[in-house]
Amino acid sequence: MNNEERIKSLLRLVPDFPKKGILYYDISTVLRDRDGLQACMSAMAERLESTDFDLIAGIESRGFIFGTALADRLKKGFVLIRKEGKLPGFIHKLDYALEYGHAAIEICDGAVTQGQKVVLVDDLLATGGTAAAACKLLSLCGADIQKILFLIELGSLEGRDKISEYKTDSILKFE
Amino acid sequence: MNNEERIKSLLRLVPDFPKKGILYYDISTVLRDRDGLQACMSAMAERLESTDFDLIAGIESRGFIFGTALADRLKKGFVLIRKEGKLPGFIHKLDYALEYGHAAIEICDGAVTQGQKVVLVDDLLATGGTAAAACKLLSLCGADIQKILFLIELGSLEGRDKISEYKTDSILKFE
Repeated sequence: MNNEERIKSLLRLVPDFPKKGILYYDISTVLRDRDGLQACMSAMAERLESTDFDLIAGIESRGFIFGTALADRLKKGFVLIRKEGKLPGFIHKLDYALEYGHAAIEICDGAVTQGQKVVLVDDLLATGGTAAAACKLLSLCGADIQKILFLIELGSLEGRDKISEYKTDSILKFE
Repeated sequence: MNNEERIKSLLRLVPDFPKKGILYYDISTVLRDRDGLQACMSAMAERLESTDFDLIAGIESRGFIFGTALADRLKKGFVLIRKEGKLPGFIHKLDYALEYGHAAIEICDGAVTQGQKVVLVDDLLATGGTAAAACKLLSLCGADIQKILFLIELGSLEGRDKISEYKTDSILKFE
């Protein structure tokens, strides 16, 4: 079984979560399996083999799961993109629209220096709204985004359209 | 410079965050430095060298930062303890008191099997309320908690008193 097959075999699909009509891709059943976790990290690390970069950025909170582990494996720094009000000191903030309402993400001033090469990592590409906002925030801070890497991509939601100016990759793609 | 000295040299102390009178220990300046991140993970991995365990549990969201990376390094599974309403399917929930008000944490049914040896990891031991709640929740699920490991411990808040029945360790201890 290769890494992708192992991850797929451990993924749990939960209907009607977080609300009716949504099929939730639960990664917790993959992570709690030691071979599943190794498969995730190895697969993601492989996809960055030919990418030259300095920092991995992860979006709170599931982006923290893969982001730090990947930064540790590849000996890079890790940058936190957090929800509103969680980061101390001088911060940069970006409001963005959600399907219903809006949200805000923040990054510490100085977290990225001008021209630093950054890879953004998250667990899931769905509508792409949060990833697009994170890229905008990183770019405003001077980051040169080299790639966006997801564990799972839900193709039918066309999230790639919102981040089409960047190189995007995912380990598992579903319709 | 050893790992502890390196982490300490990169830590940023921010006064009056998240509210007046609180001195915030900001780990983001450690994480964004590649040597700082390696120092954190190496120091934490060393503290678990003589511990026999199957799973690492991490509390949302900063426990995810170190928990998964440590599980990846040590080839263990990783279990998510999340805030209310974030986990799908059958879950176990625990309400606990905070200084003002209360909070709840949740874990997926089946995340831990009876007698499984678990290490709980978090970034900071302050009053110990969340760590104590996480241990209670893990124990109710059948976990045999081997150790609780923090990056930073604030000794004057006496958080160890709330988790005195468990082996507790921290990389950096402040008053």
